[in-house]
Amino acid sequence: MTYCCALRLEQGLVLISDTRTNAGVDHISVFRKLHTFGVDGERFIALQTSGNLATTQAVIGHLQNALTLRQEPNLNTVNTMFEVAELIGKTLRKVLADITSDLHEQMNYSCSILVAGQIQGDKMQLYNVYPQGNFICATTDTPYFQIGESKYGKPILDRALYYKMPLDDALRCALISFDSTLRSNVSVGLPLDALVYHKDSFKIPTGKRISENDLYFTQISKQWSETLRRGLQELPKPTADYDL
Amino acid sequence: MTYCCALRLEQGLVLISDTRTNAGVDHISVFRKLHTFGVDGERFIALQTSGNLATTQAVIGHLQNALTLRQEPNLNTVNTMFEVAELIGKTLRKVLADITSDLHEQMNYSCSILVAGQIQGDKMQLYNVYPQGNFICATTDTPYFQIGESKYGKPILDRALYYKMPLDDALRCALISFDSTLRSNVSVGLPLDALVYHKDSFKIPTGKRISENDLYFTQISKQWSETLRRGLQELPKPTADYDL
Repeated sequence: MTYCCALRLEQGLVLISDTRTNAGVDHISVFRKLHTFGVDGERFIALQTSGNLATTQAVIGHLQNALTLRQEPNLNTVNTMFEVAELIGKTLRKVLADITSDLHEQMNYSCSILVAGQIQGDKMQLYNVYPQGNFICATTDTPYFQIGESKYGKPILDRALYYKMPLDDALRCALISFDSTLRSNVSVGLPLDALVYHKDSFKIPTGKRISENDLYFTQISKQWSETLRRGLQELPKPTADYDL
Repeated sequence: MTYCCALRLEQGLVLISDTRTNAGVDHISVFRKLHTFGVDGERFIALQTSGNLATTQAVIGHLQNALTLRQEPNLNTVNTMFEVAELIGKTLRKVLADITSDLHEQMNYSCSILVAGQIQGDKMQLYNVYPQGNFICATTDTPYFQIGESKYGKPILDRALYYKMPLDDALRCALISFDSTLRSNVSVGLPLDALVYHKDSFKIPTGKRISENDLYFTQISKQWSETLRRGLQELPKPTADYDL
């Protein structure tokens, strides 16, 4: 499986993806699921992928190929993030149609894609492209999307995240969301790819790979366990009607 | 949907179930999913159910009917918790076979059942009865089972729970697991039914119903949100390589 999480906040974007893929429990590999595109100073586009790896690689491959061969439309010539999401949705539909015209059968090869970024002259956006190629857009009410194994890491986002949250707080919140998922589900695994984009910077972030022995991630994971254990103990004792 | 959680710990059992059922989003009802049986001073047996409501009610109905008509075997005459789990598995198989002999088709009407309790002369046990009627038993390594919408509430159990945890700490841990689930998934809803059984007491607990306006649950839910928010802020600031 996969876990990808993307936050679109007042100050920028926080994107984190895991890298574990599996075809059965005995065929586990590491594949990057966070992909960046763009032109420094002009546009930044990131894709996070979950689902069938051949399909997501084909979508990324077609997008990259169009850039290499300067075929129109491509990620460097579309005008807005909406057009980026449309291009990705169309590319996904084409990849699936190449396998079969049966829409029901297509779902066996499908994927979900988070698309985030900003193009000069347009707002910073975050889209969730569904397996059918249509998509929804993040808002101030719902400032984050998740794809893949999303449930374990949802409670911390639902409790703590808000649109105006500073980027460093939001990053820690997202990292804890990943840590919770990693501990509860072996199909999501290290290393993680994380990046922070500052709104209106139009700078393509290098991003960071978080591996097994990453000191900062290990430290916050450990401290978070202690926070939870201490927090539980500090809760008031159950009332008498619990028969303790 | 449903969320039921059962902990089998050194000192006793902690069982919590929600009560929300839904047949479509416009048909939401309250049904008890935590059922107790037994004879005070001799045996305590609890069932927690998820899945098809007609099936779970039929299983409970058959078990209760056998008690009323003193048909053998019944929950008050079997000798061990293993035999309890076997009786429940068989009852479930019978209920499903009454609908159809097609095992694949049966899965459309199926359910999961957690069975916990203790009978004089036997160990306290916790079983997870699968939709097929077979079952597994909790151990000191894996002291808890969940059925239904289990993922949201799993991280806190995975981080904090251990076999020798005192019952009052474990109860708070399970309540927070429910609170996390309630906040992230509308298919799990209040009121909750909770009970604590003390090992070797052979006393059937009254249990407690936790409703919308329960002061203690509201208080720990609010305090937990603060714990998480403060805990996130107290994590060390992200390192420079995150480009913040």
